[in-house]
Amino acid sequence: MAQEGVQNGGAEKVEPVKFTAVKPQLLVEAPKAADAVQFYKSAFGAVEVGRTLHPKRKAEQELPHILSAQLELAGSIILVSDIAENSTPVKIERGGCVLCLETEDVEAAVDKAVSAGGVAEGEITEDDGACCGGRVGKVKDPYGYVWLICSPAKKCSDVKA
Amino acid sequence: MAQEGVQNGGAEKVEPVKFTAVKPQLLVEAPKAADAVQFYKSAFGAVEVGRTLHPKRKAEQELPHILSAQLELAGSIILVSDIAENSTPVKIERGGCVLCLETEDVEAAVDKAVSAGGVAEGEITEDDGACCGGRVGKVKDPYGYVWLICSPAKKCSDVKA
Repeated sequence: MAQEGVQNGGAEKVEPVKFTAVKPQLLVEAPKAADAVQFYKSAFGAVEVGRTLHPKRKAEQELPHILSAQLELAGSIILVSDIAENSTPVKIERGGCVLCLETEDVEAAVDKAVSAGGVAEGEITEDDGACCGGRVGKVKDPYGYVWLICSPAKKCSDVKA
Repeated sequence: MAQEGVQNGGAEKVEPVKFTAVKPQLLVEAPKAADAVQFYKSAFGAVEVGRTLHPKRKAEQELPHILSAQLELAGSIILVSDIAENSTPVKIERGGCVLCLETEDVEAAVDKAVSAGGVAEGEITEDDGACCGGRVGKVKDPYGYVWLICSPAKKCSDVKA
């Protein structure tokens, strides 16, 4: 970056944009976000650290929609939000976003998530898992999100790009 | 949790499962993961800290697929992976996962992401943004993922669940 600065010289000063956090936001069909928060607490031990509600509550809504619930999980923050029926769904044509959760105890974590209402997909494998090798289990939660429960990625730092 | 432990008494000892990291994994139609990594570097200043390739390279593949590229972004790790054509896509019926990126300079961040090839969706707003209020811009990247570029969530700690 320093070199780029020199190359750009006096022509145009571009300040690097700094980002302070990246937070996955899970959009859930309203009004299920409250249930989803409960699930992530039960399944993964997430801790709710904040919740903001939609300021306007419509007459037909039984519950105010959750604009954003902030959950602390493994030192990161994930957000869970109600998405109204008339909102444009986020469509990814192929692929999609999954969430990798690292733990030393893949089996216990998968069992706990399944006890809480998740569905295990396939067996726990040790081959070409989607993360950095190691053991990987897959759990789909009741809101459609796929969680990869993985042993910690130890090998990555050895791998050169 | 302590209370639960007491209630369970000697019947069954349940060790809490500890998670050491949560990492969003962005699945990209193969073999575009390498391009996606380049985009996240250019658009957001992500730093690649590791990359693992699929051990088996099929004859028809021009490039080995990326099993997982690890990118450091705002102190977190995100993963980018090629997903083969015959893989089951992750389908979320409604909603889906978006990524909130917090920065003090929403405008500059959106501009930079658009310069790198992202598409701004709507204007930067200051009303009921999906995160914790504040300014929010939305950028869709060339791989279908939606990024919310948000001013840092300052209000959340004041909000009780």
